[in-house]
Amino acid sequence: MTLDGFLERHGGWLEAGPEEGPVISSRVRLARNLRETTFPGWASKEVRNRVWNEVVLAFDGVPGSKGFLRWRMDELSALDRELLFERHLISRELAERQTGSGVFVNEDECRAVMVNEEDHIRLQSLQPGMNLQKAWEAADELDNALEQGLSYAFSSKLGYLTACPSNVGTGLRASVMLHLPGLVLTEEIKPVINAVSKIGLAVRGLWGEGSEASGHMFQISNQVTLGRPEAEIIAHLDQIVLEVIEHEKNARLRLMSTQEIRVHDHVGRAYGILANAALMTTGEGLDLLSALRMGADLGLLPKIPRREIDRLFIRIHPAHLQKEAGVALSPEERDIKRSQLIRKFLENK
Amino acid sequence: MTLDGFLERHGGWLEAGPEEGPVISSRVRLARNLRETTFPGWASKEVRNRVWNEVVLAFDGVPGSKGFLRWRMDELSALDRELLFERHLISRELAERQTGSGVFVNEDECRAVMVNEEDHIRLQSLQPGMNLQKAWEAADELDNALEQGLSYAFSSKLGYLTACPSNVGTGLRASVMLHLPGLVLTEEIKPVINAVSKIGLAVRGLWGEGSEASGHMFQISNQVTLGRPEAEIIAHLDQIVLEVIEHEKNARLRLMSTQEIRVHDHVGRAYGILANAALMTTGEGLDLLSALRMGADLGLLPKIPRREIDRLFIRIHPAHLQKEAGVALSPEERDIKRSQLIRKFLENK
Repeated sequence: MTLDGFLERHGGWLEAGPEEGPVISSRVRLARNLRETTFPGWASKEVRNRVWNEVVLAFDGVPGSKGFLRWRMDELSALDRELLFERHLISRELAERQTGSGVFVNEDECRAVMVNEEDHIRLQSLQPGMNLQKAWEAADELDNALEQGLSYAFSSKLGYLTACPSNVGTGLRASVMLHLPGLVLTEEIKPVINAVSKIGLAVRGLWGEGSEASGHMFQISNQVTLGRPEAEIIAHLDQIVLEVIEHEKNARLRLMSTQEIRVHDHVGRAYGILANAALMTTGEGLDLLSALRMGADLGLLPKIPRREIDRLFIRIHPAHLQKEAGVALSPEERDIKRSQLIRKFLENK
Repeated sequence: MTLDGFLERHGGWLEAGPEEGPVISSRVRLARNLRETTFPGWASKEVRNRVWNEVVLAFDGVPGSKGFLRWRMDELSALDRELLFERHLISRELAERQTGSGVFVNEDECRAVMVNEEDHIRLQSLQPGMNLQKAWEAADELDNALEQGLSYAFSSKLGYLTACPSNVGTGLRASVMLHLPGLVLTEEIKPVINAVSKIGLAVRGLWGEGSEASGHMFQISNQVTLGRPEAEIIAHLDQIVLEVIEHEKNARLRLMSTQEIRVHDHVGRAYGILANAALMTTGEGLDLLSALRMGADLGLLPKIPRREIDRLFIRIHPAHLQKEAGVALSPEERDIKRSQLIRKFLENK
């Protein structure tokens, strides 16, 4: 049950996908709870352990469950929990929980089920590029299979019951991770975010709630989960995100037609620093990789595949670097390792 | 009498020289005036023209005068005057004067005589590296030869008379151009400058009086010209500069022994930006070339000869770029040309 294998591979949601220029990935998560069982935040250790055991039992009955790895948080080191967080497989909140909390992850990392997070079950489905529909279908399929062995808390009036009222109803949060450097550089990002917020969608950073938009990454998701069917929520998000993608593409075209030399300068400098620095923080790395990614998108760096940059976005994080080194590293040691990793990646490119 | 040839060559004072790691060049200048002739700042056009003609006549009698190019300021374009200034052959003040003002420059650019600057004659002698003695001898030789055909304003009590009292006496200003990135990075430059100032020497930037220390370049020169023989002034400056060089070398050693990775990072980033930017201002170029030069000095960039970097320090300036382009360039066009010149230089290095 080691996590070492993670270092040699990447999530299947970082394979080629639709609209993968401005889009990293599409995600659907479902919140579910067991009937007549205290929510994890209020439950005793006994109850949390019982929930874990019930979910394990149900999971073993799910077709294809052999393809899932599983870990309890209390058997993982802090570093391994951080590694799962950096790979977007568990939330910060789950990483900090212990008794009865854990996660199931299928081998291509496109589906994961957290147990005893804020809700008893948080089921996530990821797809590369712009593909909310497929993410939804995969989530729905796993949810239905799990429900064969579990009895969910459900009200015919409200829908699925959840620990936080904001998730009651469908328990669905759909989101798309977008890379929007064009809108940032043209300073059009704020009006776009404002417009998106006004129609009931949320915009967050790379790591979800409360995180900043490092590397010009923005997550757009639905806020409302109650009173609308899942298909409608997804269709609405899909439509709005496609509009944001159009804005981003237009911003890039405009940059290239009116300020081409500045774009070359921006991308060239990012490449030059990444390829030659000997110390690099995560934040600077993300911002420079963002510029590099835009350069790859615009055809300025034909030898650097965009999706390989996306994988670096994850590999330069602290837990990944330390896992690879096999020892705990000080912040300066990480800054050295990070710059080495990036330089090696860019060598001969 | 074209200045185009300047673009294909560099000043002889940028050849190899003693202590050329922290030292760019050594310079001696002598201020001289003609007896019973109004100083240029107060003289009529007729007087200034007469002075020019007298100096020309005397110059033609100097052995080797055929090896000197000569230009009157009023026959040069603003761009050509700027070019001579960027090459350290004339002062900003001479570039702005017209009638009767001009310059004689020998072909290796190691000696130049300005006419009708602040004084009637400003004779300059440059040598590569740390070599004040040789610079002094070359200046003295030319001064003596010129004196054969001119009658200098000289008081047996005060020495040579000059327009500004600060030059009365020997009329001598000796200076050494130093590259001191080690002292800047270790933040020891201020105490060193203070100590040097306290013993009667002046510290200025790359372009003399009033200029800032772009590219970590510092000019150290004598202030006092009166009451001490030339040899003593030069010996004193020589001794103090050698001490500053020791400080710089120690600062670099300390940087490399205690912060080697930071030095690598500093030099690597400078190289990366210089080799990949598409826009670069003069100021940024000088600062990054300074880091590159230190890297070359420390053996981190074995394929980049230090003296070629020193020549770039001059070639990236606006008049040089425009002379090379053959047309006037806007600031942005210059920033583009400058980055192209630097990228081309670094290609395959």
